[in-house]
Amino acid sequence: MPATLAEKILQAHSDEQVTGPGQIVRCRLSLVLANDITAPLAIKSFKKMGAAGVFDKDKVVIVADHFTPNKDIASAEQVKVCREFAKAMGLTHYFEGGNVGVEHALLPELGLVGPGDVVIGADSHTCTYGGLGAFATGMGSTDVAGGMALGETWFKVPPTIQVVLTGELGTYVGGKDLMLALIGAIGVSGALYKALEFTGPLAAALSIEGRLTMSNMAIEAGGKAGLFPADAKTLEYTAKAGRTGDKLLAADPGAAYERTVTINATGMEPQIACPHLPDNVKPVSEVAGLPIDQAVIGSCTNGRIEDLRQAAAILKGKKVSRNVRCIVLPATPSIWRQALAEGLIETFMDAGCVVGPATCGPCLGGHMGILAGGERAIATTNRNFKGRMGSLESEVYLSGPAAAAAAAIAGEIVDPAKV
Amino acid sequence: MPATLAEKILQAHSDEQVTGPGQIVRCRLSLVLANDITAPLAIKSFKKMGAAGVFDKDKVVIVADHFTPNKDIASAEQVKVCREFAKAMGLTHYFEGGNVGVEHALLPELGLVGPGDVVIGADSHTCTYGGLGAFATGMGSTDVAGGMALGETWFKVPPTIQVVLTGELGTYVGGKDLMLALIGAIGVSGALYKALEFTGPLAAALSIEGRLTMSNMAIEAGGKAGLFPADAKTLEYTAKAGRTGDKLLAADPGAAYERTVTINATGMEPQIACPHLPDNVKPVSEVAGLPIDQAVIGSCTNGRIEDLRQAAAILKGKKVSRNVRCIVLPATPSIWRQALAEGLIETFMDAGCVVGPATCGPCLGGHMGILAGGERAIATTNRNFKGRMGSLESEVYLSGPAAAAAAAIAGEIVDPAKV
Repeated sequence: MPATLAEKILQAHSDEQVTGPGQIVRCRLSLVLANDITAPLAIKSFKKMGAAGVFDKDKVVIVADHFTPNKDIASAEQVKVCREFAKAMGLTHYFEGGNVGVEHALLPELGLVGPGDVVIGADSHTCTYGGLGAFATGMGSTDVAGGMALGETWFKVPPTIQVVLTGELGTYVGGKDLMLALIGAIGVSGALYKALEFTGPLAAALSIEGRLTMSNMAIEAGGKAGLFPADAKTLEYTAKAGRTGDKLLAADPGAAYERTVTINATGMEPQIACPHLPDNVKPVSEVAGLPIDQAVIGSCTNGRIEDLRQAAAILKGKKVSRNVRCIVLPATPSIWRQALAEGLIETFMDAGCVVGPATCGPCLGGHMGILAGGERAIATTNRNFKGRMGSLESEVYLSGPAAAAAAAIAGEIVDPAKV
Repeated sequence: MPATLAEKILQAHSDEQVTGPGQIVRCRLSLVLANDITAPLAIKSFKKMGAAGVFDKDKVVIVADHFTPNKDIASAEQVKVCREFAKAMGLTHYFEGGNVGVEHALLPELGLVGPGDVVIGADSHTCTYGGLGAFATGMGSTDVAGGMALGETWFKVPPTIQVVLTGELGTYVGGKDLMLALIGAIGVSGALYKALEFTGPLAAALSIEGRLTMSNMAIEAGGKAGLFPADAKTLEYTAKAGRTGDKLLAADPGAAYERTVTINATGMEPQIACPHLPDNVKPVSEVAGLPIDQAVIGSCTNGRIEDLRQAAAILKGKKVSRNVRCIVLPATPSIWRQALAEGLIETFMDAGCVVGPATCGPCLGGHMGILAGGERAIATTNRNFKGRMGSLESEVYLSGPAAAAAAAIAGEIVDPAKV
């Protein structure tokens, strides 16, 4: 039977015969991930299970990225739990201090995830790795504890929505805008427990960064996973990240999709998700003029080098509005260093941005840019739920890096083409 | 009557005749300062007083440096109070976002403080400006509110301890080491409500950065102020910072000192203040070998360009120990940019440091590097009180930038000459 990408990957990791959506299958895991918020919970469950050790010390990864550099005593204690567990288990891939990057930016660049992998992580944006053709999904910390111990877990095979990406990207439009347009079209529950499979000429044309951004936000449509085929571009990326043996991967011709949605980029304006849901999406022209207090450029969604380049292109030679804090958080140390080498950090500093270390920071209301009541932010992050970045009386508008940078300069939401 | 530096400055700001220590005099204020922790308290008192406005909108300064980028909702609300007050009062010098530097590094570099000034600030390290020959001291927020409204306050004229600095600085020894040696010698109450007046050939030889570092820690000996004469070097610095009309300033020959203490730098090892008081000072050789979890390079004490150069010289081409988080926080945006231009930021990143924005950060247990129980930090900051940087079960060792950088590499306290 012709298989979707999701079915094909799950099949390759299971001894059972995958027959189609709704079926429960047991799968071998390529990698199990947790962070400084979720690992301590997973470790607690892991110990309760009486697990002797992790299934593979190379395949259990902990990244202390959410509240680091340690925000407070509680977060310092959480990281300490992670560190001690990593040491006790002899984990190869434990990240803290100068090695920390935002997990979903870090793992792809280190070659820890790639095409055909099945990855679970105690973080909802684990779906990011679908950008490389991995079946990757977020799970609760108890399930992740089980995965750490056993190296396998069960999945309900998801039905797949085929997303056809067509048309041409405008100068200030990228993966983030395409994804916001999709979420706006199908809604935050539009892909609930379903896989999104991205295809079409624009999917092929999209950079790896753009793909990772799109897959990252699959969960914002309720998706179990968001998958791109692994093409030559993918293999080039994963080879550069140090992986060997990765192969081209695509759905079978004739695979059964629940439905097909087409997103056409031609003539698309930068998209903005307005409060308080990621599907409250409007073209920038409809929200232009709205004053902002803060702009955040970073996160697992848009903290990669391509994102920083886009933001820097807008900010170069300009000044951030006096009324705006523009916080730039390159997502990993190597992205940070690359941005430094390319002069982007200099551009940000000269424009009056605040440049911080690689951390999830304010995205989830953690630290490094929390909002007071009545404040409004534009952010390249992935969620704008009420109170997500601070006060319940604050507002978050989601955008791509160009629109966020443009708003930082203008002091209000604006079409980047007009800055 | 020949006057000490402190007496001379207070006299110049008072209509009363200054006769000597213990006298209460009313003085005109050159500048009144508060930050995001203390300004909201001062503003509350200011409003309670029924003050119509500040005495001079150019001379009331608010710097949101302690918990920014906003650590949490509470700190975001504090900054909002500062911002709204600054706007309502039309303050010329309000710092937030990309303009923020650590207040005591920022004000000197902007020329807002200088020789002969009388400055009060709702922050204990306001004494820093003594490095430029200002009588500057920390006060409670109610007193600062009074100063904001009236532009004057009262002082009890302090007796002065003369500190003679002599000898030659070794490669890895600077102002911080001299000051730790002094505090070790006289104790944390050794200068209680007294002025320290630094003099001698090494005081003259010391860089402005080194002087600011020493004056900064006057309060750690209980000092009301810590004053350097304003010499040609001072005037060059303040002229560069945009000030005009500054004049040479020194104590009168024959001024009456309570006592004289001599600190001889020749042969001095890097000094380390051990837990839990800044006067528990030992030469580095006596504490070498003690493992550390974190190194912090920054703060109003040692976050200036000279400090970063010293740290970078040690870290260049080396790697931070895997067991250490080395957090570098340049103290102002312009120091940050200078460090960038000189390649220091690159050196820090290549060594595996975490480079953050200009913030007080972990110094006072704020954010950006808080310690868990059982953790030990070496820090270029100014206080190592129990729990100062996090858990009550954590420890802070104070040092200069060279010793902190060396420890970051070694993973333990070490003589920088041996790294």
